[in-house]
Amino acid sequence: MRILPQLAFAAAILAAFPALAQDLAAGAAAVRDKALTDTLAWDITESLTSEVGARMVGSPAMERARDWGVAKFKELGFENIKVEAFTTPAWSRGAESAEVVGPWPQKLAIIGLGNSAPTPAGGITAPIVVFKTYQAMLDQPPGALTGKIAVVTQAMGRTQDGSSYGAVGVQRRAGAAEAAKRGAVGYLIRSISTDDTRLPHTGGGAAGGIPAAALSPPDAELLEHLAARGKPVSVKLEMASSSNPAAPAWNISGEIRGKEKPDEVIVIGGHLDSWDPGTGAIDDAAGIAITTAAAKLAAQPGKPRRTIRVVMWGSEEQGGSSGAFAAAHKEAVGKMIVAGESDGGAGRIWSVSVPAAGAGHPAMKAFYGTLPKLKVAVSRAAPASGGADIAGIIGLGVPFVDFNQDMSRYFDLHHSADDTLDKIDPDELSQNVAVWAAFLYTVANSDIDFRAKPAQP
Amino acid sequence: MRILPQLAFAAAILAAFPALAQDLAAGAAAVRDKALTDTLAWDITESLTSEVGARMVGSPAMERARDWGVAKFKELGFENIKVEAFTTPAWSRGAESAEVVGPWPQKLAIIGLGNSAPTPAGGITAPIVVFKTYQAMLDQPPGALTGKIAVVTQAMGRTQDGSSYGAVGVQRRAGAAEAAKRGAVGYLIRSISTDDTRLPHTGGGAAGGIPAAALSPPDAELLEHLAARGKPVSVKLEMASSSNPAAPAWNISGEIRGKEKPDEVIVIGGHLDSWDPGTGAIDDAAGIAITTAAAKLAAQPGKPRRTIRVVMWGSEEQGGSSGAFAAAHKEAVGKMIVAGESDGGAGRIWSVSVPAAGAGHPAMKAFYGTLPKLKVAVSRAAPASGGADIAGIIGLGVPFVDFNQDMSRYFDLHHSADDTLDKIDPDELSQNVAVWAAFLYTVANSDIDFRAKPAQP
Repeated sequence: MRILPQLAFAAAILAAFPALAQDLAAGAAAVRDKALTDTLAWDITESLTSEVGARMVGSPAMERARDWGVAKFKELGFENIKVEAFTTPAWSRGAESAEVVGPWPQKLAIIGLGNSAPTPAGGITAPIVVFKTYQAMLDQPPGALTGKIAVVTQAMGRTQDGSSYGAVGVQRRAGAAEAAKRGAVGYLIRSISTDDTRLPHTGGGAAGGIPAAALSPPDAELLEHLAARGKPVSVKLEMASSSNPAAPAWNISGEIRGKEKPDEVIVIGGHLDSWDPGTGAIDDAAGIAITTAAAKLAAQPGKPRRTIRVVMWGSEEQGGSSGAFAAAHKEAVGKMIVAGESDGGAGRIWSVSVPAAGAGHPAMKAFYGTLPKLKVAVSRAAPASGGADIAGIIGLGVPFVDFNQDMSRYFDLHHSADDTLDKIDPDELSQNVAVWAAFLYTVANSDIDFRAKPAQP
Repeated sequence: MRILPQLAFAAAILAAFPALAQDLAAGAAAVRDKALTDTLAWDITESLTSEVGARMVGSPAMERARDWGVAKFKELGFENIKVEAFTTPAWSRGAESAEVVGPWPQKLAIIGLGNSAPTPAGGITAPIVVFKTYQAMLDQPPGALTGKIAVVTQAMGRTQDGSSYGAVGVQRRAGAAEAAKRGAVGYLIRSISTDDTRLPHTGGGAAGGIPAAALSPPDAELLEHLAARGKPVSVKLEMASSSNPAAPAWNISGEIRGKEKPDEVIVIGGHLDSWDPGTGAIDDAAGIAITTAAAKLAAQPGKPRRTIRVVMWGSEEQGGSSGAFAAAHKEAVGKMIVAGESDGGAGRIWSVSVPAAGAGHPAMKAFYGTLPKLKVAVSRAAPASGGADIAGIIGLGVPFVDFNQDMSRYFDLHHSADDTLDKIDPDELSQNVAVWAAFLYTVANSDIDFRAKPAQP
């Protein structure tokens, strides 16, 4: 078969500009397929959870996590590694205990909520008032809970998109302050979780000036059973938490430098800090592992045109990374092509949402072409969240994506002692890496501009 | 339609002898059906787990459990209520903790095993040796573990009949002594369990003179990951347990007295004591609830001919009830028609096994007739176990039954903090009651003799 001169010319162009559509599609598919059998994300997750484990901001473990992050970037050949220090308020746990003291003595499984006040030494003992809904507590007038421990036992439903966390989570985030307004001396909630184990789930709470803790689901139900007997039930709560108004923290980043436009930067990552009861596997060693591994894979066929920066944000759980990152990079946000954060665990991605401006570009067409094999749908909705650690740069105008993970099981584990490596399915982890790697490959090897006005249909 | 004189005569006999086959079958079916909608077993389980909770032999809670048992029998109208005191050695837990101290510091979730020695104040710190099978530890020669903490991480498989507990449980029951023989200064095992939560499972262990504890499954896997790195890993273990050579304990019983042959006694029950981390719901509030409710239901159509005695055995977990019960009743065992214990949780009964001597009797035919609706098979095997608390009277010749519960989920919960009320399915609990009630009804209203020689086929 004769080769037409036009085709030969086209082939020459393709060879010269590997970012053209056909090559982008083939390259993205190859990167995706390599990701599906690659174990780097698993190895990174295993490394962080085994060698550091729980890492709360302000703890010695967080310093070990920082050193781990720098060493990991070096080991993997990342360039331009930076440790950007900042300070942030950090709460830390002390000894904690709770028990029903009468009329039916029983120990309770609790965990203090971030920002909780400590109890006086020796604890507090007070009658409980059990509310089966958060609204029922809010309906109480000022003074109605004077001298009482308010207990809210409303349960969270299981949802694929995790939306119930936002809805029910308010009782953790705001409840202590609301209970205190009504005179309560302590505040207990059913864990914001979907499991039924005896492991309570912590998380940030609004400082209400009173001790506040989460009960495991069975303990919340026990208090319901006891309250239903109609006799006053007394609970003793003892918590020795403390706060540091300016704990040291670090956003750590490493880059795969672009060979043509190194100043055009894709910013992705996860957060390095975790709550303390588990080993921070799904929240968020997995996010760090997924994005780090995806960046490595996206660059394996050869250096990309643009830079891929992976960030290990340093204080997501207690806040601070996002603002510090935005402040440190506010002069550079104009060159940030797109941002994304993996912070929804290690469940498979079921849909992706990218800015409308990119939808018609060959790079996104190439990316979308990799998704059917991964059973990922392209959402028609605009990206809505991005992630807590990129909220700051999003506020400064950086386009962002949402890669929506299946969170059906996430809240069984989240912020509890059960957030451990064994809960991660290696195949689901790899599917995440494949989606991210295909996206990074297409964006880093194209000129796609997510800030452009969307084309009219 | 004319009634033949023979039929009229037969009807008169049936009225006079309700134990005849047709009536036994109809009565057993009615008792079964009532059990399926009855809530007494649930209410008893809720009461014991809410009002007493964990109840270890030798603890103040066990005294409250004793009083609860007596009060419950009275409330339900049981007669001839007895509290038979005995003493038994009892181990009790103190403060416990474990952590990897180096090179990768992490806290470990552990729970001490019954009969464990305490550590010296301040704990012990020693290098670990991880064995992935129990046999691998047994293969070590004397002295091979000198100064080490031996760690066995072999996992238990999930089985419907619970048989894996006997097989793998040996590493809990005998391992500390075996480790000590080889020079170990401490012994850790992966929990004998089928779950993957961060809640370790306790249980009795052979006293080996060294501290012995169970790791949660994720913690056992963490130690495997750390050991695989090839550097020495040090663990600090601190346990402040103590032992009482003669703790007070009580077997508590109540009766439904037979109206014709009150001295012929069916002995059934569960055990009142529990391990300490949970509220002893499936182990064994459920067993007490099932047998107590079944006895009540079997007597509701009218007093049975024979006596039904329900026993709340007082020290199953640490041993002692069985021997004490046998010793107290050794003169009376000849009048014990049959014995049974419900101590396999609250999962549905999937097969029953009764002594071969009873198989052809109309009472057992009536009982078997109730089972298809309950999806229970009649096992061809002879009863094999009976239960730990009736082992003593079985040894004295009392016939016994096995009602085999589905234990597929039992070892997710057993001996852990997760043994709580919410794990019980009310419908499965009712199915258990229905089987027991139908059995009690047929045996208590017949003259079946399980000691008789089986008829030749």
